[in-house]
Amino acid sequence: MSTDTDADAREQLIDLAEDFYDQFAEGDVPKMRIPTRTKSNIEYDDEKNVWVYGDRESTRTAKTISGAEKLLKATYTIDFLAGQLDEDRSSTLRELYYLSESWDLDEAQFNTQDESNNLIEDLEIVSEVKREDFHMRPEESGAKIMGPLLLREQTNRGDREIHCQNDVGQGGYQIPNNPDTIEFLDNDAEFVLCVETGGMRDRLVENGFDDEYDALVVHLGGQPARATRRITKRLHDELDLPVTVFADGDPWSYRIFGSVSYGSIKSAHLSEYLATPEAQYIGIQPEDIVEYDLPTDPLSDSDVNALESELEDPRFQTDYWEEQIELQLEIGKKSEQQSLASYGLDFVTDTYLPERLTEMGIL
Amino acid sequence: MSTDTDADAREQLIDLAEDFYDQFAEGDVPKMRIPTRTKSNIEYDDEKNVWVYGDRESTRTAKTISGAEKLLKATYTIDFLAGQLDEDRSSTLRELYYLSESWDLDEAQFNTQDESNNLIEDLEIVSEVKREDFHMRPEESGAKIMGPLLLREQTNRGDREIHCQNDVGQGGYQIPNNPDTIEFLDNDAEFVLCVETGGMRDRLVENGFDDEYDALVVHLGGQPARATRRITKRLHDELDLPVTVFADGDPWSYRIFGSVSYGSIKSAHLSEYLATPEAQYIGIQPEDIVEYDLPTDPLSDSDVNALESELEDPRFQTDYWEEQIELQLEIGKKSEQQSLASYGLDFVTDTYLPERLTEMGIL
Repeated sequence: MSTDTDADAREQLIDLAEDFYDQFAEGDVPKMRIPTRTKSNIEYDDEKNVWVYGDRESTRTAKTISGAEKLLKATYTIDFLAGQLDEDRSSTLRELYYLSESWDLDEAQFNTQDESNNLIEDLEIVSEVKREDFHMRPEESGAKIMGPLLLREQTNRGDREIHCQNDVGQGGYQIPNNPDTIEFLDNDAEFVLCVETGGMRDRLVENGFDDEYDALVVHLGGQPARATRRITKRLHDELDLPVTVFADGDPWSYRIFGSVSYGSIKSAHLSEYLATPEAQYIGIQPEDIVEYDLPTDPLSDSDVNALESELEDPRFQTDYWEEQIELQLEIGKKSEQQSLASYGLDFVTDTYLPERLTEMGIL
Repeated sequence: MSTDTDADAREQLIDLAEDFYDQFAEGDVPKMRIPTRTKSNIEYDDEKNVWVYGDRESTRTAKTISGAEKLLKATYTIDFLAGQLDEDRSSTLRELYYLSESWDLDEAQFNTQDESNNLIEDLEIVSEVKREDFHMRPEESGAKIMGPLLLREQTNRGDREIHCQNDVGQGGYQIPNNPDTIEFLDNDAEFVLCVETGGMRDRLVENGFDDEYDALVVHLGGQPARATRRITKRLHDELDLPVTVFADGDPWSYRIFGSVSYGSIKSAHLSEYLATPEAQYIGIQPEDIVEYDLPTDPLSDSDVNALESELEDPRFQTDYWEEQIELQLEIGKKSEQQSLASYGLDFVTDTYLPERLTEMGIL
């Protein structure tokens, strides 16, 4: 079923191609402007509470051969995407790269997958249509959810109603590539708990934490896929649930929190769609390492560099993060979330999480 | 609910500890013998059709301080595992490592996670009980299944009956960490198709391949987790279904096939439990690269080294693999499974897979 969103996406893409046509018709050299995608060109949007691109722009112009080839590739890609939307098909970024080999003009074919990936990102930014609405699927699928939530997913074989505790196995509900095919029907949830590691996710499910605390446990699985970030945002916005992130106590995990909360530099154009600025960090906080006397590893040189670069990162320039990161640099240590097991397998669900959630005003 | 398997596992572990006790009682220095785990000590078992450890053994003995510490750690670990089985709890390898910090004797605590991981492997081998039966969960969960299969999973909140097409979303059924909690109730499947990449898995599901060909599509997600290999073996053995593996055409993917089919060196003691020796490789075969004229990348030096080391690997010493690997070294090229998209998005499901499955006698 082609939807209204599909028709809109198709129209936005055709508009882009029309722009090139009009520029030709008026005797202008065709060009496309896109925001510069570097850390120095992202800024905080006070209204929307997320990080977005600043005013700096780059221009792709047909004045040079390489620029002209880029616009040619963009046109072929728009043609492919418009056809895909018409037929209600979808494809992956990698398939697009290979598909280009079937295009009649050699110059339109992609030389590397980076080239086609970047072009899709450019098209997302310029058309203001998300990749998912072009029906470009990510390679990495979303993670999984366990908790008191009844949803309806529109699949290509019909609708499915699924309760994320009663209708799923121990592994939980698998988030589809495009979570906008999901409608939330009913829930008894009090909050969302995003968990970095599979081991900790399984611990919480085994201990029945989702059931006892009416939590929606979302497994992030490291750096979260777009689908995972999107559904987290929707759980917050549509169900009015507080979102918390539970990760390891090291700079790489703070970046995982950052991508849930503030969006990433690479996808700052999607912050409004993917980021949950109200998300709160449960831990492991550097403060917890001291307070709970957790087993630690020393910070490596690359950990220290990462922490220092976080102090410069606009996303981490808050009192909370500056205090925590400076404390961590001072103690020179990091701890994993599973290190809580040094106090027994139930410590995390009986003591640590309830204490932290109470401090944060969520319980 | 503690099961008979749990009681058996517990008994096997206690037997090990008793052995140490008896050796002490008889005035002997306690020791534990385990097979040497190197490539030169795995051999083909003609009866069972899998690769198993040969006769070479190493001995852990309390004659040295480090040997004595190893046996001490083994005893503490056995005590923990026996308690865990009594209480019907489970834990991850990482949790075990951290838990050891709560043990009263400093010398019994693990210094690194490698140490605790290796000890659990040793205990598996010596006790002939699988890690899953100790209730040690892997960090990585299993992948997902889509296809005409009705199963019952025993979860820690009761049984769930799930049809792997009708009761799941587009993402499929999430294989739990221990797939032996699953009972197969009914199926209309003709064969199992294990798929390496998420992008290709999604392509097959979008194109309705599982439905049209009554295939159980199992997503491997790179090197498959133990849970994924275990359920694949059970689908073969219990439902009498042919198992096929569809991966990229490069040496790393042949190793993925190898681990499904022949088991791995690291887990040769589990081959009977995890390996499906009857599994067949669909492709991408080096032969396909030539025959279908697929887009390729040149082999890198490390690809060439990996292919050459596969020629020496007992698991690949068959006429089929020698021919394919030598062909690949000759053409100097590799292709990804998604490169089939260069003939359009339906080529893989309309042409390539049906042709290959017919050649293999499965369709």
